[in-house]
Amino acid sequence: MLQMRHAIPELDEEAMREATSRQGRLTKPAGSLGRLEELSVRVAGMTGRLDAPLRDAVIFTLAADHGVAAEGVSAYPREVTAQMVLNFLRGGAAINVLAREVGARVVIADVGVEADFPDHAALRRHKVRLGTGSIPRGPAMTVTEAEQAIEVGGRLVREEQALGLDIALTGDMGIGNTTSSAALICALTRLDPAVVVGRGTGVDDEGLARKVAAVGRALEVNAGAIAQGPVEALAAVGGLEIAGLAGVILEAAENRKPVLIDGFVSGAAALAAAAIAPAVIGFLIAAHRSQELGHSLVLDRLGLRPLLDLNLRLGEGTGAALALPIVRASVRLLNEMATFGEAGVSERAIMIPTTE
Amino acid sequence: MLQMRHAIPELDEEAMREATSRQGRLTKPAGSLGRLEELSVRVAGMTGRLDAPLRDAVIFTLAADHGVAAEGVSAYPREVTAQMVLNFLRGGAAINVLAREVGARVVIADVGVEADFPDHAALRRHKVRLGTGSIPRGPAMTVTEAEQAIEVGGRLVREEQALGLDIALTGDMGIGNTTSSAALICALTRLDPAVVVGRGTGVDDEGLARKVAAVGRALEVNAGAIAQGPVEALAAVGGLEIAGLAGVILEAAENRKPVLIDGFVSGAAALAAAAIAPAVIGFLIAAHRSQELGHSLVLDRLGLRPLLDLNLRLGEGTGAALALPIVRASVRLLNEMATFGEAGVSERAIMIPTTE
Repeated sequence: MLQMRHAIPELDEEAMREATSRQGRLTKPAGSLGRLEELSVRVAGMTGRLDAPLRDAVIFTLAADHGVAAEGVSAYPREVTAQMVLNFLRGGAAINVLAREVGARVVIADVGVEADFPDHAALRRHKVRLGTGSIPRGPAMTVTEAEQAIEVGGRLVREEQALGLDIALTGDMGIGNTTSSAALICALTRLDPAVVVGRGTGVDDEGLARKVAAVGRALEVNAGAIAQGPVEALAAVGGLEIAGLAGVILEAAENRKPVLIDGFVSGAAALAAAAIAPAVIGFLIAAHRSQELGHSLVLDRLGLRPLLDLNLRLGEGTGAALALPIVRASVRLLNEMATFGEAGVSERAIMIPTTE
Repeated sequence: MLQMRHAIPELDEEAMREATSRQGRLTKPAGSLGRLEELSVRVAGMTGRLDAPLRDAVIFTLAADHGVAAEGVSAYPREVTAQMVLNFLRGGAAINVLAREVGARVVIADVGVEADFPDHAALRRHKVRLGTGSIPRGPAMTVTEAEQAIEVGGRLVREEQALGLDIALTGDMGIGNTTSSAALICALTRLDPAVVVGRGTGVDDEGLARKVAAVGRALEVNAGAIAQGPVEALAAVGGLEIAGLAGVILEAAENRKPVLIDGFVSGAAALAAAAIAPAVIGFLIAAHRSQELGHSLVLDRLGLRPLLDLNLRLGEGTGAALALPIVRASVRLLNEMATFGEAGVSERAIMIPTTE
């Protein structure tokens, strides 16, 4: 098994205790802010502070092509990957609109799209190769290429940190990538393709059957590589943007930055990152439960409960962007609410009913 | 049954058809934005336009006291209602923090708190009476007082409309008000108190038993008034802020403004408004599923699916504020995303798998 060095720090237990204690003194019934209370405590553990700034939110939307798209597993032709990258650069895609709404910036990176793009200030060019090989026929890429793609993700995070990065959000674009993600999830968890493979962008019953079959063949054909370790599995049946996102996640966690994980494809990347360095899980926040079939199983394996459940299945980072205001709100509540003492509000009473 | 005139307009079917059609042309797989697509169509129906402005969001946090608080049904003493109003005015409560985070303004109104407040520019003084009577012993208020409280809500909306109001959010403060809300819900739905009454701010098992018993007695003692109609039921077992919120909902709907409904207490007010004028339901958006026991049953009766499920049980409008960015995002996506034609992105392909 390939060794990659990722020194993920431990969560700050002291900050978590302080956050928990402060939650109990704020002017509200204990626990009445539900999951926002837990979230504020988790962010304190990640960042080591109760008042973690979360203004500089960066959505890493990584794009690449997938050889398996030629096997009839997607409702859209492969050209759509490149067309959507251009749509991102013009600001017309869902992720652009949501980034504007929530106050985040989008970083679009080409990790392996099969197209030449014109120069554009917003496009990070880090093509590792022109799309992956078709996974039911052989490996997606070499282990060296997978390592390069992981390193692209790390580099993107370091570049954005230089500009200001408080929280990282993951996103993806790649026709065929729910097939690669399903294969990678099955490879890492030994789950059956029948419970993991979903309809992606919307394949019909025949397309779904082809997709399940393609994942099954990919797992057989690449069984030897998969058995060697997570990076080898990522190289065998993953994707370039998926490997890049694993790199984003590992680098952000190393730097104590919370990572807001989007849906199914980002979930596959998170599973891979967790297989490489299990301590990353402490830095992950699951944004939403995707409509894609196997996503709940991925969240279960990671031990994460999603914040939103809105039947989304778009990717790009859209679910992560929608969950960002909730994360920000949780931290702001912890810091800006008055305590019972400050506000002169009576704490919980011992209940003595009046007699009739 | 008392007749109240509320001319709730019909939803704009033409705008809804146009919104649905545009959703199908945007650069994403059809349906992949899930509940955000439905939401954008509903808002188009409410407002009569695809690009409804939602910047001026007003949270109506109405406060009042409840005679039933003396029966040992709450974990907090009654003084907390007034103390929390002062906390709202100083900006230290959860709803203030969330309003700042999401960009909304909070209107605090005293509809019947048992305390004298100092002058404050942010406090709307509309005390109908000093708290309600204890509902297991008799009516909460007279029918005339309930009508006055409903009219307070209407007036608050009209005043804010003069300043700019695109969307109304409901919120509440009143020690004892989950008991009154549960009684009103049971009165309007004939549900059993055992499946509606919850722990509110956090009563123990004995407190819960007292609460269930108090609601049961309130329904018996006030059975005659309850049978007469929704306003009479509101007067008999409701609360002044609950009646005020029903007025907010009715007035906003009359003016084609979307209404984002908070949790359990707001849900009781929405049920009352819907009993008075069933067409208001078309203008309601359920913000979240509260942790309070009977809330899901209220949402079922209204036919509404909540946007969030975060184990909240605080009230004040906190759940509504947290859901606001999702509503805004849905409308913005409908308007700002590029269509397939504009972006030069290929539409769904007929899938022809390559042969081996």
